[in-house]
This record gives sequence, C-alpha cells and structure tokens, in this order.
Amino acid sequence: MTETTRTRVAIIGAGPAGLLLSHLLAEAGIDSIVIDQRTRDEIEHTIRAGILEQGTVEVLRESGASDRVLTVGSRHEGIELRFAGEGHRIDFESLVGRSVWLYPQHEVLKDLIAARIAAGQDLRFGVTATRVDGAGTDRPSIVATDAGGREFVIEAEFVVGADGSRSVARAAVTGSATGGYFREYPFAWFGILCEAPPSSDELIYSNSPDGFALISQRSATIQRMYLQCDPELDPNSMSDRQIWDDLQSRVDGHTLIEGPIFQRDVLRFRSFVAHELLRGRVALIGDAAHTVPPTGAKGMNLAVADVVLLDRALRALLLDDDSRLLEAFPETALRRIWKAQHFSWWMTSMLHSTPDASDFDRLRQLGELRSVVESEAGSRYLAEAYTGWPLAGR
Amino acid sequence: MTETTRTRVAIIGAGPAGLLLSHLLAEAGIDSIVIDQRTRDEIEHTIRAGILEQGTVEVLRESGASDRVLTVGSRHEGIELRFAGEGHRIDFESLVGRSVWLYPQHEVLKDLIAARIAAGQDLRFGVTATRVDGAGTDRPSIVATDAGGREFVIEAEFVVGADGSRSVARAAVTGSATGGYFREYPFAWFGILCEAPPSSDELIYSNSPDGFALISQRSATIQRMYLQCDPELDPNSMSDRQIWDDLQSRVDGHTLIEGPIFQRDVLRFRSFVAHELLRGRVALIGDAAHTVPPTGAKGMNLAVADVVLLDRALRALLLDDDSRLLEAFPETALRRIWKAQHFSWWMTSMLHSTPDASDFDRLRQLGELRSVVESEAGSRYLAEAYTGWPLAGR
Repeated sequence: MTETTRTRVAIIGAGPAGLLLSHLLAEAGIDSIVIDQRTRDEIEHTIRAGILEQGTVEVLRESGASDRVLTVGSRHEGIELRFAGEGHRIDFESLVGRSVWLYPQHEVLKDLIAARIAAGQDLRFGVTATRVDGAGTDRPSIVATDAGGREFVIEAEFVVGADGSRSVARAAVTGSATGGYFREYPFAWFGILCEAPPSSDELIYSNSPDGFALISQRSATIQRMYLQCDPELDPNSMSDRQIWDDLQSRVDGHTLIEGPIFQRDVLRFRSFVAHELLRGRVALIGDAAHTVPPTGAKGMNLAVADVVLLDRALRALLLDDDSRLLEAFPETALRRIWKAQHFSWWMTSMLHSTPDASDFDRLRQLGELRSVVESEAGSRYLAEAYTGWPLAGR
Repeated sequence: MTETTRTRVAIIGAGPAGLLLSHLLAEAGIDSIVIDQRTRDEIEHTIRAGILEQGTVEVLRESGASDRVLTVGSRHEGIELRFAGEGHRIDFESLVGRSVWLYPQHEVLKDLIAARIAAGQDLRFGVTATRVDGAGTDRPSIVATDAGGREFVIEAEFVVGADGSRSVARAAVTGSATGGYFREYPFAWFGILCEAPPSSDELIYSNSPDGFALISQRSATIQRMYLQCDPELDPNSMSDRQIWDDLQSRVDGHTLIEGPIFQRDVLRFRSFVAHELLRGRVALIGDAAHTVPPTGAKGMNLAVADVVLLDRALRALLLDDDSRLLEAFPETALRRIWKAQHFSWWMTSMLHSTPDASDFDRLRQLGELRSVVESEAGSRYLAEAYTGWPLAGR
C-alpha cells in the first residue's frame, strides 16, 4: 500500500525558489516538505554563477537565510559596457543608489539547506516527483519515488512546482509538459574557469565585431569568462591560446590577466514563459515558470521575486483563508516576468552579434550603446533593471 | 558653349536642408546658389507631416527664418503611448523641460523660400542637376540643365548634396548612386487626411494586436491618422467604414471623432545611411545622407542637425581657411545619425507588429512598453530622443 505523508505546502525542487519559499513559510508557522531528485552533495557542488539584486540580498538577510553573502560575496557598484574599443561604466550607486552582489548560486543553496536543516525541515533528497494530482481540489498531491524506488504520496493544501526548466509539476498547471512561450537564440556562451587574479573589479559586458564577451569573477584566485559562440561549438576544440586571444580581442583596450583554464562549458540560450502559473492549488515558480538568457543575470532574482509574491499569497490563503492575493499572483508575477524577459532580451540583443546581422544592424547597435551610455536616463533605465525593480510589499 | 556660373557654395536641393544651409551661410556673408528640379509651387504644396524638435524650432527662429511655427504651429508637451487598452502620457515638459512643435514641413519650406527670396538669394527652380564633378579639387562643380533644357555649370568652393533620397550628388561622394547601409521593414503606413476636429490634443502612438496606429493632427478641422499596413496595400481597397473601424479598434479605449476622408496614401518604411558623407569638397546632408522610418519623427530634424554642423564647418573653412571642423564633420554627424537611426528603429519595433512575430515576441513587446512607462528613467530616455539631443555649439 502506498504511504501518504501530509503537510500544508508540498514543494518540488530544492533550488533557490523551493528552499527560500519553504524558509519564508516556516517563519509564518506554515509547515512544508521539500523534495528533490538530486543529492544534497550534487545540489551544493554544481557550480553556478550568481549576481544577486539588492532586493534578493535583503530577502536572504532579513529572513535569516544568509549573512554570508555580505562576507563571502562581493558587492558590485556598477558594470562596464565596452564597445568600439572603449569602456563605459554604468555606476549603479550614483544612478539608483543600489548595488548587486556577486555570490554564486551554489553558495545561496548551501546557506538555505543549512538553515532549513537547522530548523528541522522535512527536506528529502534523492526523491523524484513523478506527477502532481488534484490541482483543482483543495487536497492536491505529489506522487513521488524515493531513493529506494518506493512510491509514496505527499498530500497538501498547496503544491508548488519549483522544479526547474524540466518541471514535472508544469503539466498539472499548463496541461502539457512544455506549454509555454519560447524564444531560441542563434548563439550560446562558451564559459571558462581559470586560475588567475581578477582582470577587473566589476563585470565587463563587451560588444565586439567578433561577438560578445563577458569578463566575470569568482574569487581572488579563480575567474569566470565567457565568449559568445555557436551553439554547436565543441568546448574542447579551442586551445587555451585561442581562447585567450579571442577573449582579449573582444575586450579590445582592456588587458586580461591570463591563467590556466581548468573548466570549459557551453551554455545554451533560451527564453521561456509558461502559459499559466497557477491552476487551482498548484503554482509554478522559478525556472519551472520561466527561463531567461543569462545576459542581465535575471534568472535567480526572478525566482526570488516569485517566492516573495507566492509566500504572501500562501500566508493569506492558509492563515486567513483569503485567496485574493493568490488569485492575483499570476498577473502580478507575469508583469515582472515579462519586464525581465524584455530586459534579458534587450541586453542580449544589444551586446551580441547575430549571425544574419547586416552592417546596418551592427552600426545601429553601436548607436544604441552610445545612446545608453551618453544619457543619464538611458544608463539609469538599465541600472534600475539590472539592480532589480522593487519587490512586492517592500 | 556651356555657361559657367560661380558661387562660394553650390547646393542641390531646395528642401529644408538646402534652404536652411543657404540661409545660415548668408548670415555669415557666404554666398550660395540653390537649385531644385521641382517648381516652387510643387515644393510649397507637397503636403508633408512635421514634428519639429525644440532645437530645430530654435534654429529656425534665431536665424530669422521662421516665427510662424510659434503662431501657426502648435506646441506639444508630450505624446501618449497606448497599449493593452490603456494610454500612458510621456510628459516631455516634466521629464526634460522641452517640447516639440507640430508644424508641417511644407510650411517650413514656405518660410525658408520667402526668407531666401526676400534676401535676394540665387534660388533656381526647375533646374535639374545631372552630376557633380571635381570632388577632389578645390573647384568642385555641378553640371545642371535648366527648365529650357540648356546645360550649364555651377562652379563653387564647395558643393552640397541636399537632394533627397534619390540624390544625384551621392555618387560623387560614395562612388555609387546607392552606396549605403540599408534596412527594409515588412510593413508600411496607410495614411489618411480627414475633415474632423482633433481626436486628441497630442499624438497617440498605439500598439495593438492588429498593428500600430498613429493619431495625429493637422489643424482644428483637418486630421492626419495612420494605420500600419502591408506595403502592397491598395489605398483604395478599404471603405471609409473599414478605415474608421480599424483605427478605432487599434486605439482601444480612446474614442475617435470621425469625418470625411479626403486623402489616402501608403508610406513605405526604409532606413538608409550613406557609406560616406564627405569627399573632398562635396558633402551630403538630409535625406541624401540618411532616411529614417517615420516613427519618432526624426527625418527633418536630423537634416537640420546636419545643417547646423556643416554651416559651422563651412564658415571655418571659407572664412578662416580652417578645415578641422569639416574633417570632423562626417564622424560628428554620423554619431547623431546612428543614434537617430536607433531611436527610429526602436520606436518602430516597440510599436509595430511584425508579420513573423511569435506570441513570445508580442508579450515581450508589451513588457518593454510597460518597462518604459513605469520608469521615469525609461520615459525620460525616450523623451530626450523625441524632443532632440542638443545641437552642435548650442
């Protein structure tokens, strides 16, 4: 006989969205169970980049989830936009009085997992959700299989799909595994990790005739850099020398500090928004609801914005029996999601070379970059989006 | 034997660019001859729209060319952006402390022609330039044919091609009649003139699922409105009823005042920038140098910006024998031209429906419009461009 476990909120996915939601709900005395098919070790050691908006940092700190972002992370008060051989700093502090923090996603996950375990959270690794049932009832459930292959059911008052871009929960909300709006891009990022001191204190987003490059940091001794590439590129087809030469030529005028390259990967670009975010008592958040291309660093921040909204809605529903915030959740969340989709598309299209771009397109792109950096308003419009629009209720 | 006339600056084209340049040069005591293949009557009675940037109005007024813009024209302190059934005013006065003026181009031309004739200008209508010679010498010349079919030559110290998008002078500068950067758009504007009072005090730029519409004004009794359409549309294929129904549905939520439609035309969209603006002693300005799509109303204003730059350069060259401003002219002019090309492309792409747009593209576009109107910085970035960046030396 299949075992049934009961909780108030059942969450699929121990990523930033699922763990933070569980953490915030616990503050309000609402119990939850979080399941994830990965092991704790896999989750904590899958290296992921991370630029946290100021609002994201505030949510993590004020909820007691993480103070390490302030000590281990590093505060960035601006970025550099480079084009036509010149760098132009977008000074977030002077433009909007806000900053972002460089703090990798896996560090956020370590903090959240530690906080949830310390609080006695029912957090189950190696557990695979197979489907979500009863979205239209007030007793939705997750059917799952544990590490030993045993099927069991988690019955709850609300189910949340925070299970990433290959979401199992999505079918219960949208009616199909893929139901959503898509956009593909004709390029990808070739990322490297290298042993070297930082080549720059802040991120450099560089537009060049040969394609985009991003100079990023990981720590005092490890750096992360990216080259726009063909999505089919074999990451091992380029020599270290070729990689450094390409990076250097694409940030023309800024000297890079080279070092041994010890990791290479290719990141595909995709934009996605699910057709629906809510059906009855099942909601989608984070990558299950939307994917953005990495330019502009909105991925994890958008997940946190979803969580802040859904946490408020679930407190009202489960503590006060008031469903109004939940009913408003999809529209409210989608407003920010589509603005973030636009921002990510804008940064991508302004900075990358499209294979079929004409000379006109290329020169118009430089005209756009010049318009943005020469205008306080243009620079501030970019800085507002990059550092993050205000979060609900804050 | 071919007659040769001499002057200091020979200008092809009695449009806004050529006439204003001649007028400004005369202020500095530099003589010019302006030729145009059209008759004065044709020039003054070809109805053209006109939104003048504040800087354009200042140049016209301060040079004594026109005060009528202030009495006949009407000052617009903003525009409305409409989408998703709601209007959002971009308030130029509060955002940038600047305005634009609705004042048709043919009125500007009447003012300039009257001013030039009053000053005894050598202004020759019905004269067709056939080619420009000697760009690389200090005695460039125009070979032209007068209304009677007689060929003659105008020899000058400098020749200016202000002869529009089908420029004859362009070949002398770029080496070919068409040498430039192009962009075509998969749509056009279907424009009407109607007898009715204004439906709005200011322009309404409306994005709708069926395509863009622009509600514009001509006078208290005549209005100008546009519908995005297929470039191949036969302007007589739609009934008045269909036109009004389409206009009304595309500005959903704002009631239009209908009236008899007495003119219909289809405007094609094209972006163009000449490969070069200067060769030796021949320069291109206005539509001979660049064409923009009409969204954003940059055409005539960009011509005036070219004129302001070239006037300063020619004064330095011809009065002080100093060629530095002329040498800098192409790069300085092109910076503004590419920003204006970007702005025109941006307004076009943000507001129109592209035939191959996906649902994702359409929702991203609404996300963009929302980003702009919800942000003071975004609105100001748009207002700065619409009301016009500062002109050289002002």
